[in-house]
Amino acid sequence: MALNKKPYKGTRDFFPADKRVQDYIFSKMRESASLFAFEPYDGPMLEEVALYMAKSGEELINDQIYSFTDRGDRFVAIRPEMTPTVARMVAQVHKEIPKPIKWFSIPNLMRYEKPQRGRLREHWQFNCDIFGATGRSGEIEILQLIVKLFESFGANKDQFEILINDRDIVNAVFNDLMKVDEETSLKLYKIIDRAKKVSAEALQKMISELSLEPASEEILKNYLSVQSFEDLFKFLEKNEQTDKLTSFKELSDVASAIGLADYLVYDPTIVRGLDYYTGIVFEVFDKHPDNRRALCGGGAYANLLKIFNENPVAGVGFGLGDVTLTDFLKTHDLLPDLSKNDVDLYLTFQTESALAKNFELASQIRELGFKVSNSLSPIKFKKVFTLGDKQGAKFISMLGENELEQKILLIKNTKTKESFEVKFDELEKLKDILS
Amino acid sequence: MALNKKPYKGTRDFFPADKRVQDYIFSKMRESASLFAFEPYDGPMLEEVALYMAKSGEELINDQIYSFTDRGDRFVAIRPEMTPTVARMVAQVHKEIPKPIKWFSIPNLMRYEKPQRGRLREHWQFNCDIFGATGRSGEIEILQLIVKLFESFGANKDQFEILINDRDIVNAVFNDLMKVDEETSLKLYKIIDRAKKVSAEALQKMISELSLEPASEEILKNYLSVQSFEDLFKFLEKNEQTDKLTSFKELSDVASAIGLADYLVYDPTIVRGLDYYTGIVFEVFDKHPDNRRALCGGGAYANLLKIFNENPVAGVGFGLGDVTLTDFLKTHDLLPDLSKNDVDLYLTFQTESALAKNFELASQIRELGFKVSNSLSPIKFKKVFTLGDKQGAKFISMLGENELEQKILLIKNTKTKESFEVKFDELEKLKDILS
Repeated sequence: MALNKKPYKGTRDFFPADKRVQDYIFSKMRESASLFAFEPYDGPMLEEVALYMAKSGEELINDQIYSFTDRGDRFVAIRPEMTPTVARMVAQVHKEIPKPIKWFSIPNLMRYEKPQRGRLREHWQFNCDIFGATGRSGEIEILQLIVKLFESFGANKDQFEILINDRDIVNAVFNDLMKVDEETSLKLYKIIDRAKKVSAEALQKMISELSLEPASEEILKNYLSVQSFEDLFKFLEKNEQTDKLTSFKELSDVASAIGLADYLVYDPTIVRGLDYYTGIVFEVFDKHPDNRRALCGGGAYANLLKIFNENPVAGVGFGLGDVTLTDFLKTHDLLPDLSKNDVDLYLTFQTESALAKNFELASQIRELGFKVSNSLSPIKFKKVFTLGDKQGAKFISMLGENELEQKILLIKNTKTKESFEVKFDELEKLKDILS
Repeated sequence: MALNKKPYKGTRDFFPADKRVQDYIFSKMRESASLFAFEPYDGPMLEEVALYMAKSGEELINDQIYSFTDRGDRFVAIRPEMTPTVARMVAQVHKEIPKPIKWFSIPNLMRYEKPQRGRLREHWQFNCDIFGATGRSGEIEILQLIVKLFESFGANKDQFEILINDRDIVNAVFNDLMKVDEETSLKLYKIIDRAKKVSAEALQKMISELSLEPASEEILKNYLSVQSFEDLFKFLEKNEQTDKLTSFKELSDVASAIGLADYLVYDPTIVRGLDYYTGIVFEVFDKHPDNRRALCGGGAYANLLKIFNENPVAGVGFGLGDVTLTDFLKTHDLLPDLSKNDVDLYLTFQTESALAKNFELASQIRELGFKVSNSLSPIKFKKVFTLGDKQGAKFISMLGENELEQKILLIKNTKTKESFEVKFDELEKLKDILS
């Protein structure tokens, strides 16, 4: 029986046109990270399941992880996210290296998902984290980096926004103002996390089922009606949360001063499901009505190293997946045309006798730094332009008996059809022609 | 109990200094491939086990593969090599796209190995393949590309060589000259594959155990004593293998004409264990006595698409692992110093009041294309140079009360200690200073 030619469910084959898009996206990620002096790192594709268990709890492990027992009886998983790995690595070295530590990575990750738009089983994720920054400066730099990255693709404030909240504020609302117990607090987190995905009625129903004190429910409603930084500051002031107000205002003031205000929107329903966040939490949202979804999420966490018995090191970071980002860039028409290869010269020959010479010329022209596609077999004159065009070649050359004899290379510009003759022993002249 | 901080057995954590080395190696691979107009591709991390079973047989599957059953009852494996994936992808499109198809990839792969020098459970592998080239031209281009890649690292003919053979010749020796049956032929492949790893006595013992006809054993000995192209051509001539002689001579002649002769050594013991090769087989060897090992292997295969019920498309390719290549580059001292980050300007400030301005300046200077490391917190004057040096910063700047007031940035060259003052509203002058 013939084998299946399709890729495994929920994964992608990247044919060259697709891979060039991914490489374009990766190169923008690397450029932005290195403009911010973030350093690259990577870790293994497999980690022990215990690492994910400690960080994310049972649910993710049971339902969404690719786990198995290896031949040495270790219970391992294909990495579903990068944060546990980077925490494990920072735990090894944080005592020896100067802080803040600023690292980035673009790993391939797998989750057992039901494949759908924006969600696949395998994706690549741009991960940036800062460890050991003081005050709110790490949070601000992470937001600045995200905006810079999106701008590097040509995106603007009409196309994306960063919905932001602070766990410290959410905790204050639940614990200090509403005074609910821990169990109810956890339920509230889950309800609020779903707030934007359900109707107002459904949200009210979920809240009613908690049977909160009327005063608490009133506070919750007031909190959920907050729609901007200004609203939030009024709410905190009214409820005498001076510490939270001062601290979050510092973040907001610096963000405004450095031009981030256009992108930041306070949103009380952003809480991020995972339980390790302790400071800001945020999601980058596509503003296009056809693709209204979270592109990227992140936040600040104070205690990630605890699972390794290490002293706390404050951290903040985000993960941006290639699937959702590509959807965003396509939705807003922000991708260049990468359907064809990028070739400087399609080097063809007409007779078998020119085979060795064509290989030699290819080598010499590559030494000059040009991308040369050797046709590898004789090409009929009338097919050279068509085949050159399919490869995205800027120039083509044809090596026939005549040229071999006269020791010259005949070159043509594929757009202008302009011709050039270059002697075999003067190939450096190609620098002027092909550039 | 605290979690383990070490990576999973046989895998690596890439801290920034390690990752920069890997990125340097990857960038040379990408550059070489694109100078040859190879196009990038990638496939999924998981494939169905049936794909590997069809190509490599039971042994690899049973002992060396990371396989498991997914939640949907599919028997899958983490890719141990890339060739089955590229064959599967080419099978999908080969009828529609012009040939030759020239593709490259740098996937992460996993094999259940006993970790040792040059061999880990997870590695990255540079894969290049040409499908649909005619005659021997694909084989020649693949060899040309390998030499170009190694030369791009600064390696020369004293440091590496390509040991080459041809399955077509090996088959002719076994079948036409020695006239052994299929079972003995398979055993001979395995014995020859081990020839360089065992003593002459052990090799003779394995051969004796086959109880070959004396005439056949004599031919085998003559064949195994071949040490160069010249020897081979004499051997083939003497044994009246004119077809093989003509075909392999064509390859050798073109290789010589284009300057590859210095690197190519005919070696009768190179057969490559896997059974799908049909043309040349080769291994790049490190010539250094301390690291005498295969760095890279490959060959030509005619029937790889058969498992998908597709018509044959001739292919040739190689895989070069990052672990062995890194060992090679270290052995020959061919790696640049990448221990530190590459930062243009370490932007520091002295008082909390300068925090927002420092963020704003960082953003403006990055707009000019420079890599700026924001200190994120106030840095004492006397620590600025030390911290800048640890980050590999070429320049440092200090923003104190004075500079804030006068609206100037004080910049110092970390090497020459030369100072510059730049007004906040004339930052474009940094282009001359930092470049």
